[in-house]
Amino acid sequence: MPDTATTTDLPANAAGTLGQQLAARVAERIRRGALSPGARLPSVREGARLHGVSPSTVVSAYDQLQAQGLVEARRQRGFYVREPLAAARGAAAAAVPAAPTAPLAPPLDATALIRGMFQQGAATTGPGMGTLPEAWLDQPLLDRALRRTLGRPTQRGGSAAGEALRYGNPAGDEVLRQAMARRLAGELGIAAQAGQIVTTIGATHALDVVARTLLQPGDAVLVDEPGWAVEFARLTRMGMRLLPVPRGPDGPDLAVMAQLLAQHRPRLYVTVSVLHNPTGQSLSLAAAHQILKLAEQHDLTIVEDDTYAWLAPPHAPRLAALDGLQRTVYITGFSKILAPAWRVGMVAAAPALAERLVDSKLLGMLTTPALLERAVAWCLDQGLLRRHAERVVAQLDAARHRVVRLAQDSGCRFVTPPQGLFGWVDTGVDTEPLAARLAADGWLVAPGRLFLAAPRPTTLMRVNFASAQDARFWQAFTTARHALGGQAVR
Amino acid sequence: MPDTATTTDLPANAAGTLGQQLAARVAERIRRGALSPGARLPSVREGARLHGVSPSTVVSAYDQLQAQGLVEARRQRGFYVREPLAAARGAAAAAVPAAPTAPLAPPLDATALIRGMFQQGAATTGPGMGTLPEAWLDQPLLDRALRRTLGRPTQRGGSAAGEALRYGNPAGDEVLRQAMARRLAGELGIAAQAGQIVTTIGATHALDVVARTLLQPGDAVLVDEPGWAVEFARLTRMGMRLLPVPRGPDGPDLAVMAQLLAQHRPRLYVTVSVLHNPTGQSLSLAAAHQILKLAEQHDLTIVEDDTYAWLAPPHAPRLAALDGLQRTVYITGFSKILAPAWRVGMVAAAPALAERLVDSKLLGMLTTPALLERAVAWCLDQGLLRRHAERVVAQLDAARHRVVRLAQDSGCRFVTPPQGLFGWVDTGVDTEPLAARLAADGWLVAPGRLFLAAPRPTTLMRVNFASAQDARFWQAFTTARHALGGQAVR
Repeated sequence: MPDTATTTDLPANAAGTLGQQLAARVAERIRRGALSPGARLPSVREGARLHGVSPSTVVSAYDQLQAQGLVEARRQRGFYVREPLAAARGAAAAAVPAAPTAPLAPPLDATALIRGMFQQGAATTGPGMGTLPEAWLDQPLLDRALRRTLGRPTQRGGSAAGEALRYGNPAGDEVLRQAMARRLAGELGIAAQAGQIVTTIGATHALDVVARTLLQPGDAVLVDEPGWAVEFARLTRMGMRLLPVPRGPDGPDLAVMAQLLAQHRPRLYVTVSVLHNPTGQSLSLAAAHQILKLAEQHDLTIVEDDTYAWLAPPHAPRLAALDGLQRTVYITGFSKILAPAWRVGMVAAAPALAERLVDSKLLGMLTTPALLERAVAWCLDQGLLRRHAERVVAQLDAARHRVVRLAQDSGCRFVTPPQGLFGWVDTGVDTEPLAARLAADGWLVAPGRLFLAAPRPTTLMRVNFASAQDARFWQAFTTARHALGGQAVR
Repeated sequence: MPDTATTTDLPANAAGTLGQQLAARVAERIRRGALSPGARLPSVREGARLHGVSPSTVVSAYDQLQAQGLVEARRQRGFYVREPLAAARGAAAAAVPAAPTAPLAPPLDATALIRGMFQQGAATTGPGMGTLPEAWLDQPLLDRALRRTLGRPTQRGGSAAGEALRYGNPAGDEVLRQAMARRLAGELGIAAQAGQIVTTIGATHALDVVARTLLQPGDAVLVDEPGWAVEFARLTRMGMRLLPVPRGPDGPDLAVMAQLLAQHRPRLYVTVSVLHNPTGQSLSLAAAHQILKLAEQHDLTIVEDDTYAWLAPPHAPRLAALDGLQRTVYITGFSKILAPAWRVGMVAAAPALAERLVDSKLLGMLTTPALLERAVAWCLDQGLLRRHAERVVAQLDAARHRVVRLAQDSGCRFVTPPQGLFGWVDTGVDTEPLAARLAADGWLVAPGRLFLAAPRPTTLMRVNFASAQDARFWQAFTTARHALGGQAVR
C-alpha cells in the first residue's frame, strides 16, 4: 500500500511553484526518514487528490525529486524512494547553487537531466538514452581483450600490468596511437602520424582538452543547434559565448555561419560532422568543402567530433580528411561502440597543436590509464572491433526501420531523414512536460530542450533507434501527448 | 665515432643565445636526417671545440634538445639522437608558442621539464624522480587485483567487466567510495560519507576539478612555496594569480599568509599538509589549528592535497579531520603508492560541494573507469594496500638514512628535517646549470626552480630518497658542483 502520510494541503503562500513546494515537502520527509527507502510514492492521480493540486503539479514535483536523486521511476510501476546513499547525494544536489559563470541558463537543468541519464538505479533504457543498449555490446570481447592485455608481454619485456608501475607517456599508449593512426589513414583518409594523436578519457575529455587549449574566457564558439547539452554546458561554464548555427536536413546553415563569422570572429566551430547528435545528419562533400573555405577565410579552427564514427556509412567525408588536419582537430572515442566505462577517446591534430594538447592533458591529469588503451588497441588490431561494429550497424538498421514506422504511426514527423543511432522528431507538443509525464511511467525521453544552446520550449525530441523499439513506449507516448492536448504531426 | 658534421662556427649576429642557436642548428640537422637516430652527439668538450663556444653553451644546447625530445641522455655515455617518432614529437614541441594566458613565466619551462620526467626513453631513475622506483611497487598485487576484479561477480549479478557496458556513476565506483569512506573515518579521522567522495583520474585531476569548480579566472590563490610545478602551471594557465606562502621547517609562514589574506582576499589555499613536496615538512596540530582559524576569518577554502598519505607517519593531523570538511576539501590518490598508471584519485568535500564537483567532472569526461577503481577498492578492502605501504615505509626509512648521509658527505645541507619521500637540500650552487650538467651524465635531477611559483635562480634541489641511493650519483654531483665553482654548504 502506498505511503499516504503526505496528505497536508500545500499552503498557497509558500515560496516557489506548487510543484517545487510539493517536491520540497516530500524531500524533507525522505530526509527525516518518514518515507523509507523502497516506499512507493502515491500515484500521480492519488497525489493530486491528497495534496489538492493538479496532476501536472505532481508530475513536476516527482520529476524534480527524481532529478535530485531522491526517488526513482520504475517502469509501469511509479516512483519509489531510493536507497539512503543515493538519497544523501540527491539531497546535496538540491542545494547546488547555479554555476556562477553561466551567462546562458542551460547548465543547471541540463546537468541534472544528464546526471539522471547516468544515475545508477534510474531507468537504463528508453528512447532518451544516448548509448547503445548494454545487450548490443560484446562483453566477452571486452573481457578477453583485458585478459590478453594483462597477460601479453610488451616490447619492453614486461606485461602490460607492469606498465602500471610507470606513469606512462602523457600523449597516451603508443600501441593505441599507432593503431589509430593506421585506422585514420587507412579507413577514414585522415593522414595522421601516431605523434599527432593524444589519448583521452573518452571523446568528452578530448573536447574539453581542446577547448582548454585553444579558448580564452569570453571567446565566441560556433556550435550546431540542435547539439549536445554537455558540450553547451561545458563551454558556457568555461565562460565562452555560444553562437548557434542551425543544423537541418542539409547540414549547418552556411549563410548564418558566414554572418556569425564576420560579426563575432569566433575561434572555434565544434561540430559532429557525421551522424550528428541529435539530427542524424551527415555533411555532404560539398558542404564540408564550403565549411573549410569559410574556416580559411575567417581563420577558424574546426573541432570535428566523430563520436559515432563506427556507426557511420562507408565513405562519409570527414572535414579532417579534406583538410589534412590543418584547420581541423579530429576527435573520436570508443564509448559508443565498444566499452562506455573504459573511457577511451582520442584527438588528432597538427603536430604543433598536438604538443600543446599533451601539455593541457598533462596539467589536468598527468596521464591516462594505459591498460584500457592497450586493450582497445588489441580490439582494433585484431579486427574484432570492426566486426563487432558491422554487427551493430546491421542490428541498428533493422531497429531504425522498425522505430521509424512506430514513430510515424504514433504521429511523429522526422525533421531530418532517419540515419545512424538518433532520430530527430517533431511530436506536436512541448516535449518537456511530455518527458516528465513519460518519466513518471518509467520511460526516459530526451526532450528537444536538452539540445538547444539557449533553452526554449520545443516540440522536438531525440529518439534512440536502438532503445525505442518497445511498442508499449509508443502507446504511452500517444497517451501522454493526448493528455497534453497534442495532435499528430504529418 | 661521433658525428662531427656540425662544425660550422656559430655566427655572432644570429637570433637567440648561443645555446639556442646551437640547439636550433642541431635540431635542423636531426630533422633533415643528417644526424640519424642513435647517432651520438659530440661530447660537451668536443662540441665546445667544434663550435667555438664554451662548454656551458653546449650543455645548454643539449639540454634544450633533450627538453624538445630530439635527443636523449644515456647515463655516463652522453647524448644520442632519438628515434624518429619521438623526434617528430620533439620537433613539434619546439614550435609550441608560450601559453597565451600565462601571466607568470613558469609553465613553459616547467612543462618541458615535467614532460621530460614522463617521457619514455628518458632516464627513469635518479634523485629528481617524483615517484617510488618501479622495483618498490608490487606488480603481482596489481595483476591479482585486476584479475579478481574482472572475475568477481558484483552485487548486480554481473562481472565487473560487465560494468564496462555502462557509463557508471559520475561520482565514481560505489565500492571504492565506500572503502575510502571507511579509510578516511577509521584511519585519518576524516568523517566523510561515500556520497561526499568523488573519484578522479589521480590526485592531479582532483586538484583540477576542484579548481575549475571553485575558481574564476583572475582569482587569487594561496600556494606553498616551494611547491609543485604542475599545480603552479595549471593554476597560472587557468588565469589565476598565485600568492606564494613561504614554507619552511615550521610550516607555512602564518604572518605572510595573514597579510596576503587581508590584501588579496584569495578564494583558495592549495597545500600539501603532510610530507609536503618538496620539503617533506608536515603541519603540527597547532599550525593546522591556526590555518583553519585564518580560513574562518577570511572565508577561505583549503584544498588539502594528501598525495603522500600512505607514506605519512601515524597520527599526522589532517586539516580535513580538524575541520570536518567544512572549509577543507581533501584530495588523495593511489599513484604514489600503488599503481601510477591506473590513475585513480579522489576528492572528499562537504555534500553540496561534492555535488558540484561531480558536475564539473561530468562535463569534463562524463565518468572515470570503474574497473581500475574497483581494483583499488579490492586492494584496500583486503588490507593488502596497507601491508604494501608498511613495507614501503620501512624500505624508505632505510633509504632516507643512507641518502641523508650521502648528501651531507657531499656537502649538502637539509633545509628541513628529512622525512618521507623527498629531501630539500641546499647545494651551494645554482641548481639549474647543475641539473643540466648532471642530465648530460644521465642523472635526472629536480632543480629548485621547478618548485618556485615565480622562477628565479636557487641553490636548492629536491632529492628523492628512494632513487638517490647510488653513490655514483653523489660523485657526479660533487664533480659537477665543483665545475660550477661551488663549495660545500655546512
